[in-house]
Amino acid sequence: MNRLKKKHRLPNTPILTLLTDFGMNDEYVGVVKGVILTYAPDARIVDITHLVPPQNVRAASHLLARTYPYFPRGTVHLVVVDPGVGTSRAILAVAADGQYFVGPDNGIFTPVFLRATSLTVHQVTASHFFLTKVGTTFHGRDIMAPVAARLAAGLDLNRVGPGMPVHDCIHAHYDVAIREGNILQGEILHVDRFGNLCTNISRQEVECFAAGREVVVKVGEKIVIPLLHSYAEQAIGKLLALYDSHDHLEIAVNRGNAALELNMVVGATVAVTAEK
Amino acid sequence: MNRLKKKHRLPNTPILTLLTDFGMNDEYVGVVKGVILTYAPDARIVDITHLVPPQNVRAASHLLARTYPYFPRGTVHLVVVDPGVGTSRAILAVAADGQYFVGPDNGIFTPVFLRATSLTVHQVTASHFFLTKVGTTFHGRDIMAPVAARLAAGLDLNRVGPGMPVHDCIHAHYDVAIREGNILQGEILHVDRFGNLCTNISRQEVECFAAGREVVVKVGEKIVIPLLHSYAEQAIGKLLALYDSHDHLEIAVNRGNAALELNMVVGATVAVTAEK
Amino acid sequence: MNRLKKKHRLPNTPILTLLTDFGMNDEYVGVVKGVILTYAPDARIVDITHLVPPQNVRAASHLLARTYPYFPRGTVHLVVVDPGVGTSRAILAVAADGQYFVGPDNGIFTPVFLRATSLTVHQVTASHFFLTKVGTTFHGRDIMAPVAARLAAGLDLNRVGPGMPVHDCIHAHYDVAIREGNILQGEILHVDRFGNLCTNISRQEVECFAAGREVVVKVGEKIVIPLLHSYAEQAIGKLLALYDSHDHLEIAVNRGNAALELNMVVGATVAVTAEK
Repeated sequence: MNRLKKKHRLPNTPILTLLTDFGMNDEYVGVVKGVILTYAPDARIVDITHLVPPQNVRAASHLLARTYPYFPRGTVHLVVVDPGVGTSRAILAVAADGQYFVGPDNGIFTPVFLRATSLTVHQVTASHFFLTKVGTTFHGRDIMAPVAARLAAGLDLNRVGPGMPVHDCIHAHYDVAIREGNILQGEILHVDRFGNLCTNISRQEVECFAAGREVVVKVGEKIVIPLLHSYAEQAIGKLLALYDSHDHLEIAVNRGNAALELNMVVGATVAVTAEK
Repeated sequence: MNRLKKKHRLPNTPILTLLTDFGMNDEYVGVVKGVILTYAPDARIVDITHLVPPQNVRAASHLLARTYPYFPRGTVHLVVVDPGVGTSRAILAVAADGQYFVGPDNGIFTPVFLRATSLTVHQVTASHFFLTKVGTTFHGRDIMAPVAARLAAGLDLNRVGPGMPVHDCIHAHYDVAIREGNILQGEILHVDRFGNLCTNISRQEVECFAAGREVVVKVGEKIVIPLLHSYAEQAIGKLLALYDSHDHLEIAVNRGNAALELNMVVGATVAVTAEK
Repeated sequence: MNRLKKKHRLPNTPILTLLTDFGMNDEYVGVVKGVILTYAPDARIVDITHLVPPQNVRAASHLLARTYPYFPRGTVHLVVVDPGVGTSRAILAVAADGQYFVGPDNGIFTPVFLRATSLTVHQVTASHFFLTKVGTTFHGRDIMAPVAARLAAGLDLNRVGPGMPVHDCIHAHYDVAIREGNILQGEILHVDRFGNLCTNISRQEVECFAAGREVVVKVGEKIVIPLLHSYAEQAIGKLLALYDSHDHLEIAVNRGNAALELNMVVGATVAVTAEK
């Protein structure tokens, strides 16, 4: 994933990103930012998105996986998509390859766990770091924001609570592409703003499957789409498949909207086939 | 309201928040940010929201009331929801308990006035702090942004214009819950992104009304909703009432959307009743 | 355009603005912010908007023209609306009157070229400043973000690639108001969040055309709208024309929505007529 040249100096003031399902119309984003700036007065807060579909842990995890590798060492990522708030689900503070993550233990950090070469997980239990009164509906504000802010301000990870074996954390199951005979079958993971259809089929999987043969991409019963190198190789308004900016198969229309063109949504099946 | 532990050092660079009805598609947000950074070159600008319903002073006031208590001392809050722009309405600069507020005198700061233990209000008249040419359509840019930025950069509040008695400022009227016999009646103030229905009935009012008796929440003619402690105490998909993150009564569906379930909107009546 | 008093000190940490069509639901904004903070670890990132209609270069150019003049010297503006990504279109780095601009060579910078009193354009070709692996779908991330960040961090403009004559850059054609006999005819350029209709007819053009005569604004066959000085001069709910915050003719409804009232969209014709 990581295409950055990382030998850069650390920031002089901490960077704390926010990835939530709070939406942008309510007070939640402002409240959490206020708490962060109280406990990390010099932090620069960076909005990733607040428009994760409500309580959709899988979508949040997908977005986190695609963004965090681009941030510099020392960044703290606060991820609040927390359908289990008020239950006994744990809250995690994670250090992975020099970056930090705070959020609920609901599988949201699975991609971080899978990729990290250096990984430490602590359960967040040190209540003297929480807001004075902790409610049952908004642990993003009461627990996660003050702890993430203190980490950004330099608190040692050990102090937020006891270490926790990674295999005791919730791991989400993500569907991977499946090979069946002469078909490599995957699904639409995400439809982006441009109507591009992002799949769970990686370039590596396609190249291994193709073994040098020509491949095409099929959706539905009849639609066959050529695999090209860039939007501009296809005529304007026509369908193509290509590798997206994270090296996964994407279905697009050059200067158009593939989701509208194909009437396809998240979860739909996509197949790669090769000439025999 | 304030659950923060406030003995923290001040930020090294100023924090200036924005709460507006500018929307996010037009140039207004960018223009105001540019003006702020011209007059407070080291400011960190924090977006609260720009999606206040157009010209809805009451909604802006509600959001301000719920966010500002979480910010550190020294924060400047620029609040621009200004249906009276171009009329003779005044512009205010307010210091309240160590934070600052700039915005039109249209009732938007009523919650700040009601809560402050230390309060100073000035009318903004010192035109040498405004942009060179002041128009009639965008005082957020021409007057409020440069004044707020200068306050963030250290300008003394006295210099923006003459002091103004608080009781001369516009005070908005906000409906409070009403007790009639064995009913405590309030209304829906806000529907949040999750479809939770936020009411104007506080925990304190309910507890005073209940005086130890069991209570239930009623909406419409027939729907009776139990008052619980957390979403998870109710079955998934079922209605419950609970105290929200600001200790007001909220109606929700565990992992669902109460606004859709009940087909209720802002202004609808909510009643709390107790067993006799 | 410029109403700011500019004799202010430079920021201590760089300011980098983002103006894109990425939307706010996907990973693109977060990814670009991560890249920027890797190469300019102390930058303050300022969101202008990410909601430019997808691939709409003209709309992006309009928003850029209206925002950048308000930012302080030294600001770097990263503008990514790039329908030609993956083709041979060039990428530009521009210095204009002390500010910097990075984006595709597709006409997006035309207003900057037209207004600048001091202007230098370089083509971005120095691939050692790009991410290690450059794809074909996201040059905003792979090329423009790291180059813009390095400029913000102090890189000399000369080092990004060879100088390029401005007249070799793509210039977009923008329609200007046309005078035909006793009619000054323009069009709706943009509908803002409040339903105000922004036109391409400037105050200067109207005043030159009017030469002291009274004017009215006409839309469609029959609707005649008075030209006033502020919203409040018209009755609530009634149509008026006035000069907007950038001194162009705007059609509005006092405390209402002119776009809904008139059922008008971008591109519709607007005429100014004067008494004979």
